[in-house]
Amino acid sequence: MNLLDALKWRYAVKRMNGAKIPAQTLDTILEATRLAPSSFGLTPYSIIVVEDEETRKKLQPHFYNQPQIGESSAVVIFAAHTTINEASVDAYMQEIAEQRGVPVEALKDFASYIKGAIAHQSPEQLQIWAAKQTYIALGFALVAAASEQVDGTPMEGFDPAAVDAELGLAAQGLHATVALTLGYRDAANDYLSSALKVRRTTDKLIIKK
Amino acid sequence: MNLLDALKWRYAVKRMNGAKIPAQTLDTILEATRLAPSSFGLTPYSIIVVEDEETRKKLQPHFYNQPQIGESSAVVIFAAHTTINEASVDAYMQEIAEQRGVPVEALKDFASYIKGAIAHQSPEQLQIWAAKQTYIALGFALVAAASEQVDGTPMEGFDPAAVDAELGLAAQGLHATVALTLGYRDAANDYLSSALKVRRTTDKLIIKK
Repeated sequence: MNLLDALKWRYAVKRMNGAKIPAQTLDTILEATRLAPSSFGLTPYSIIVVEDEETRKKLQPHFYNQPQIGESSAVVIFAAHTTINEASVDAYMQEIAEQRGVPVEALKDFASYIKGAIAHQSPEQLQIWAAKQTYIALGFALVAAASEQVDGTPMEGFDPAAVDAELGLAAQGLHATVALTLGYRDAANDYLSSALKVRRTTDKLIIKK
Repeated sequence: MNLLDALKWRYAVKRMNGAKIPAQTLDTILEATRLAPSSFGLTPYSIIVVEDEETRKKLQPHFYNQPQIGESSAVVIFAAHTTINEASVDAYMQEIAEQRGVPVEALKDFASYIKGAIAHQSPEQLQIWAAKQTYIALGFALVAAASEQVDGTPMEGFDPAAVDAELGLAAQGLHATVALTLGYRDAANDYLSSALKVRRTTDKLIIKK
């Protein structure tokens, strides 16, 4: 199945059948997600993958009891870093230095550039900016899942503070921004499974200049 | 090339060689982008595709003169709708009714649900929410481009108000949120082309529960 066919095949599944995603397939989806770019490459977020059934059950009320949380194979929660500062940049420089085998001093101009950009934003602006980066990763995860014939339902409909508390995210300097359930559609019980996919038509969505 | 290899191949190209993307390939990338999901399916944005060289030249100063704007084949600008209201929802219901061949009255509960959700947000919150949706579409565009072996450089580094003015977006109720240059890498002149890709390692990025 080519990419366009995979993207036409996918939809925001409302009911899943509880089947487990093979470990290697889940790894492929997460690896594609890890390869998503972010502004400056800073990756101001972490990704929490909840496969454990007990934990998914505890999360379900915080997702307005949407059944996919219990019926999925994994709930993926994108969580922005609540503190983005010079230390975040220094840690990133350390990663680049290690991965590329260059001295960290060679990166000082790049570090100053990012630190300057961060210093110009308020804590609220940094949170919005970090949240946006998680949506790029969400996009990568959705496409990768479709390409692996795994269903993925993006979700904004949850109580972020309750999810943060349930998973101990706040204590780790994280704040849930968006989620994705991964699993397999239960077509027989999903009213949406046979519905035609609706997207704004090209002539209305795309303006050519 | 499988999807993971394509994603490892891609990077945020700093210099492009000016070659044109075949029309069919660009259409494939835009069609994949069109298939991106958005909250409620409302798609509170438009996508502006600038291939015209003259227009790209005019945009370049608003992008801090980054050379990719001139050297790319197309500059794609994601632009959020500046007004998101009951009329937006009604227009969306009309689209669903037309595409699925159902009476618009059959969608009144769904319409009320979305209108209620919108009414609970301030204009500023709606703008942030709409901007986030454009980042999912950006993710889809980046993956689709890589899968077509087209380089794509995501860009937040531009003056949105100047871009809005240059392209007449404000007058159309649009506001640029993020951009993507599409084209082909000029490897010989791009210092990044031979650099090892850096991403946070799986053990640091992903938390399993």
